[in-house]
Amino acid sequence: MLRCMKRFSFSVDKRGPGGARSGILKTPHGDIETPAFVAVGTKGTVKSLTPEQLQALGCQVVLANTYHLYLTPRDEIVRDAGGIHAFMNWNAPLMTDSGGFQVFSLGVAFGAHVSKLAQKDDLVNGVAVYDEHLATQHGRLAIIDEEGVSFTSHIDGTLHRFTPERSIEIQHNIGADILFAFDECTSPVADYEYQKEALTRTHRWAERSLKAHRQNIQAQSQQALFGIVQGGRYKELRQDSAKQIASMDFDGFGIGGSYVKEDLQTAVGWVCETLPEDRPRHLLGIGEPEDLIEGVKRGVDLFDCVAPTRLARNGTVYTHYGKVNLFNAKYTRDFSSIDERCTCATCAHYTKAYVSHLFRSKEMLAATLASIHNVHFIVNLVKRLRLAILDETLDMVEKDFLSTYRA
Amino acid sequence: MLRCMKRFSFSVDKRGPGGARSGILKTPHGDIETPAFVAVGTKGTVKSLTPEQLQALGCQVVLANTYHLYLTPRDEIVRDAGGIHAFMNWNAPLMTDSGGFQVFSLGVAFGAHVSKLAQKDDLVNGVAVYDEHLATQHGRLAIIDEEGVSFTSHIDGTLHRFTPERSIEIQHNIGADILFAFDECTSPVADYEYQKEALTRTHRWAERSLKAHRQNIQAQSQQALFGIVQGGRYKELRQDSAKQIASMDFDGFGIGGSYVKEDLQTAVGWVCETLPEDRPRHLLGIGEPEDLIEGVKRGVDLFDCVAPTRLARNGTVYTHYGKVNLFNAKYTRDFSSIDERCTCATCAHYTKAYVSHLFRSKEMLAATLASIHNVHFIVNLVKRLRLAILDETLDMVEKDFLSTYRA
Repeated sequence: MLRCMKRFSFSVDKRGPGGARSGILKTPHGDIETPAFVAVGTKGTVKSLTPEQLQALGCQVVLANTYHLYLTPRDEIVRDAGGIHAFMNWNAPLMTDSGGFQVFSLGVAFGAHVSKLAQKDDLVNGVAVYDEHLATQHGRLAIIDEEGVSFTSHIDGTLHRFTPERSIEIQHNIGADILFAFDECTSPVADYEYQKEALTRTHRWAERSLKAHRQNIQAQSQQALFGIVQGGRYKELRQDSAKQIASMDFDGFGIGGSYVKEDLQTAVGWVCETLPEDRPRHLLGIGEPEDLIEGVKRGVDLFDCVAPTRLARNGTVYTHYGKVNLFNAKYTRDFSSIDERCTCATCAHYTKAYVSHLFRSKEMLAATLASIHNVHFIVNLVKRLRLAILDETLDMVEKDFLSTYRA
Repeated sequence: MLRCMKRFSFSVDKRGPGGARSGILKTPHGDIETPAFVAVGTKGTVKSLTPEQLQALGCQVVLANTYHLYLTPRDEIVRDAGGIHAFMNWNAPLMTDSGGFQVFSLGVAFGAHVSKLAQKDDLVNGVAVYDEHLATQHGRLAIIDEEGVSFTSHIDGTLHRFTPERSIEIQHNIGADILFAFDECTSPVADYEYQKEALTRTHRWAERSLKAHRQNIQAQSQQALFGIVQGGRYKELRQDSAKQIASMDFDGFGIGGSYVKEDLQTAVGWVCETLPEDRPRHLLGIGEPEDLIEGVKRGVDLFDCVAPTRLARNGTVYTHYGKVNLFNAKYTRDFSSIDERCTCATCAHYTKAYVSHLFRSKEMLAATLASIHNVHFIVNLVKRLRLAILDETLDMVEKDFLSTYRA
């Protein structure tokens, strides 16, 4: 049960093999049956889909990006529009991330101007901690200090600053049901020393995010706040982070990080084993079918990822036999649906030949039909895992899926 | 009443001032209440809209382009997919144009290679009639001879040839409910002599189109064929064309041409006065509100135009006060709908601030929401004119609309 707000609650209904569990997360805008896949609506729209299409394909909850909405149209505009639900016409659960990941991964596009950026540090009165790991691994720049992060807009290069307090303020303005604490996302190959330093800072930022949220009585009654566990690929750090974040008064947890593929599930396992059972866990930014199955088995309740819509725009669609690209010449005369086992609106009404024709002709409907299919595929894969937990058939459903699916 | 096919019929229910009339055009895929606006689905998709969205906004009928579907995916593919209705999932009336307009207006992109093109004439064994008017006015090239037109693809420059027989064959493959005879579309400023020459050729092509259609028993039982009246800005030619085309066994009529704005309605008036009352009239490629009103008053039953979707993709939307562009900075904080008198799904659920944000952010949903609005606006303007004919309030409805609308 969530501790601080009556309008939110989380209950685990059933447990499966490993740490798997099904539950219900109640929010002021409706219930989320977990495990659930959260569609990503970066700029206040799940790319190429209307809310009606999203709802029809079974999507329960959307995640919008604080960094993007802060830059455009600006969080004050979203607030003045009546909040993100009204602004984007999504009258169901909504989340915002903290902007932490984006300031690192999108940061500044001027990779060549390191010295120029270092000078900007003076402008923001911060203690310059130029992160070489980020600069080399992500190929982007951001200036991190104890107080927060100074970064330049990927749109116009203007200088901006996020602190935990500012991130929470922006998220209050946006008005989602679930917010995330401001954190530092590190490179997947950052060394132990740097990870530890970044992690202790993230924990201090977590405390400050929580304090900023609790001080806004109105927001607190409408919005839940999740803390983010970091720690990279190090067991000790991941477990320490899970303990520390769990000891704070968060309504749920994010599992953050930028991973090397083989480290992902190990890290998720350490974190889920350490986190308390009574609050929801959201594995941030992960959405490939194999990872969803592994995550569910380790006790993850929520996932989000841009992959289904991003792949769709490039003509790549999920099928029960793996991913296929509709630009392939062999689909020109293929009058079967994208996936004969799929029940989405695209597979019900269109052939590969048609969707493939739309892609070749650069028609916008191509992205829409492929996105309907991909988001449906991923949302309903997680729904199937949920039902399998309830039916006690999780192992069987996993085996059945993986018997044909090739990553 | 249509003469040749039991699965088609046209009845005029009521007459209004001038030549205005309301009626019902029955097709194998459903009825069209006329006057009606036909949405343009060039490549087998009304750009950025699903068939469900089109149906929800009140669209009764779609027109696809023979030229485009012939080039890609190819008409044989559409045929093998079960026809255009199945291919694009539009289980309602559908039309195809003849490709005549596109071979002239899109023709060849190699404007500088006139001599090279003239040489290609040998390849097709045609009598070279190089049309200087088209080359100079449309800025494109096509080689016209008595038999047909040789043209190069706008996609890859390959050489193709349309004759009346070939256009009808392609349209049979595509499988729409209503086809158009192959015609020659001339420049709006072509002189009398050229117009006359082109017109007599168009009439011979009309006869050949009709013959080709009547020879295909199966197609004839499923598809209606409309003849196209041409004649440019010349009264004598327009009236002569209307008489000649009307004397042939067509199921309806298209009014073709590329106009200088002030000539449009005069030409439409001459044609509608001359055409028989018992068959439907389609004004090809015209869709601005003022022109729709004038066309309806002169007795036009059907209109089509790419403007609603093309404008929408550029951020321009129709309102009862005229067109506005959503990129205008003043809409950033405008939390009202695009048009407060509009009942479309976009106006019901979204603000100018949101749609404007989507355009600025280059989000695909922008085009979708603006297209829903624009097509709804135009389709329902024509529906309102239809109801006004039935209610005997056409003059009032026209005055009311034009009292606020500024072109």
